[in-house]
Formats: sequence, structure tokens, C-alpha cells
Amino acid sequence: MTDKISEEELASLLANGWQKVDGRDAITKTYVFSNFVDAFGFMTRAALWAEKWNHHPEWTNVYKTVEVTLTSHDAGGVTDRDVKLASKMDTLF
Amino acid sequence: MTDKISEEELASLLANGWQKVDGRDAITKTYVFSNFVDAFGFMTRAALWAEKWNHHPEWTNVYKTVEVTLTSHDAGGVTDRDVKLASKMDTLF
Repeated sequence: MTDKISEEELASLLANGWQKVDGRDAITKTYVFSNFVDAFGFMTRAALWAEKWNHHPEWTNVYKTVEVTLTSHDAGGVTDRDVKLASKMDTLF
Repeated sequence: MTDKISEEELASLLANGWQKVDGRDAITKTYVFSNFVDAFGFMTRAALWAEKWNHHPEWTNVYKTVEVTLTSHDAGGVTDRDVKLASKMDTLF
């Protein structure tokens, strides 16, 4: 089991454009690309990391936008695994 | 501009597990796979057809499930293009 993140870690995520989800212990961010190829290309790269780390996002794609929600279901909230995947997605973006 | 679909075409979609979306002229279907690799593999194959046909889904992936919504934004409803992509997705699944 991974520990939930600290206030400092949360503040760092919020500074990078992530937001808390209303009514859930989860974080969300919407990435906007130039077109579908770029958006889905991002998802494909992120999917490989998600599978490698066995930690998967909830995400929605509508043409050039990708809305990502991260939480650790088994921990009931945001953990270091979410911070790691969030950071990777920001880098890929 | 593509014509909206007929009642017969809609009935055929519904018979294949598609459902009308409440409050929108759109259709939706949820595909459930064995795992994330299978779910995202399906999305990747479908994405190539969507881009090839320049007709893209709204879709959400949570681990092994993929929820797809199809509509033709420029036509304000479900058209032949949605039927074509829905049929392709069913085949890929």
C-alpha cells in the first residue's frame, strides 16, 4: 500500500495545472493538443508507462482534448503513484 | 453533409448493443475487455480508423472498460459516419 500524498506534494501538483476533483480524493487535468493525432499519440505514450507501472488513469478523449483523472483505487485516494504518473504525463505533454 | 440515419439503421445499432444517449442525438456503447492492454489496444486500432475517416469518437477508458459515444457534431446528430465507425468498432471488438 502506498501512502497518500502530503500537502506539499499536492501543492506542487496544483501549481502544475492539476486540480482536485469535487467529491472525490482524486486529481484531474485537461490537456489540449493541436489535433487528434497529437492527442492520441500522447495517450499511447502515457498508456505504455501506465501499464509498465501498473497504475492506470481514468481518461476521456474528445478529438484534440484529453481529460485525465488520477487516484489510487486501492488506497482510496491520491498517492505517490499518482504523483509519478502525473509528472510523467506532464513531461510527455 | 451526411444525412441523419433512418429508423431502420438506428434499430440495427440498438440490436448490436448501442444505446441512445439521454438528451443528445448520439449513441453510446461500453466495451469491456480482459485488461488494460486489450482495452487500449482496441482504442489504438479504432483510433487509426477514426483518423483515416476523419470522424472521431468521444470515449472514456477506465482500466479494462472503454465507453464510446458517437455523434456527428457538424450534422447535429447521428449519421452514416457514426454507423460506419460503430460497425468498425464492433468488428474490432
